[in-house]
Amino acid sequence: MKFEEKTLSSKQIYKGNLTEYVVESVELPNGKVSTREIVRHPGAVAVMPFTPDGKMIFVEQFRKPIEKTIIEIPAGKIDDTDSNPHETGLRELKEETGYHASVFELVKTFYTTPGFTDEVIHLYRASELEKREELTLDEDEFLDIKVLTFEEAWKAYEDEQIVDAKTIMALLYWKIERLAAE
Amino acid sequence: MKFEEKTLSSKQIYKGNLTEYVVESVELPNGKVSTREIVRHPGAVAVMPFTPDGKMIFVEQFRKPIEKTIIEIPAGKIDDTDSNPHETGLRELKEETGYHASVFELVKTFYTTPGFTDEVIHLYRASELEKREELTLDEDEFLDIKVLTFEEAWKAYEDEQIVDAKTIMALLYWKIERLAAE
Repeated sequence: MKFEEKTLSSKQIYKGNLTEYVVESVELPNGKVSTREIVRHPGAVAVMPFTPDGKMIFVEQFRKPIEKTIIEIPAGKIDDTDSNPHETGLRELKEETGYHASVFELVKTFYTTPGFTDEVIHLYRASELEKREELTLDEDEFLDIKVLTFEEAWKAYEDEQIVDAKTIMALLYWKIERLAAE
Repeated sequence: MKFEEKTLSSKQIYKGNLTEYVVESVELPNGKVSTREIVRHPGAVAVMPFTPDGKMIFVEQFRKPIEKTIIEIPAGKIDDTDSNPHETGLRELKEETGYHASVFELVKTFYTTPGFTDEVIHLYRASELEKREELTLDEDEFLDIKVLTFEEAWKAYEDEQIVDAKTIMALLYWKIERLAAE
């Protein structure tokens, strides 16, 4: 690959519970040396859960990095114990909403912001939902469930309650599904 | 806000050229204490540049965090010298593609991945393009320009050459524009 940057050295600055911060010295295509700041992330799964009456299930939660309470689709990081993202997605959906999905299909796997992190999100579409149990949230997780029609969700987007990339992508895929079905 | 997390202490772990890594101790809504790993970012602008014949201008570049060469819409971080995101966007478009846009409208401002970073992207739609000058890339920036039809861009998405959230969002907005115009 002609633009490839060769790693000259790599230094771990910090290893947290979720992310690892690494600074690399790289050789550029022109032979010069530059620095890249990289956040390593285990990857995550996000779910577009459709109810039998055509609504989508969202969660409202506080996000410390932006100091805001926002509405998102259910999501969670991939754990060491998960054998694959499909399993992570079904688990997160059950933990955050209490629902099991009989139909669970991958929509797209994407990088959130590859300029500084390797974080990947596997986005799934869930349907044939069945409420099975009470929520089992992580001990540092607090959230409210919102079940919204398309119009309600789009209003939340216009009102800046839905403001993150994965949830906006979910809304755009939903809008395309609706336009294509017209 | 009922789910708000109060900052008990904040420690800067590293300050790089692009990002700053901070670890905060927070008090959860139930009174317990937890830790949040936060990547502070200056914010960025991304542009959907439409040519007069209805194609979009993309850039192909290597992204060290994911060790891949991918196709993205033009984008760049907000500099201290920029008075606002609109100016950043016009500058980045000119630097990376050589084009000036007479029409430059904000589509959406969103957070890339608010679980661990405050990075915001202001996504603009540019049209009435006019080629004005040669590229003026940053000294550590290497890229190729790709001018693609919708079908070519969608194929790049299906072939996993377009894999990042902001560029997929651009494609989805483009698809919605096309479906709405039918």
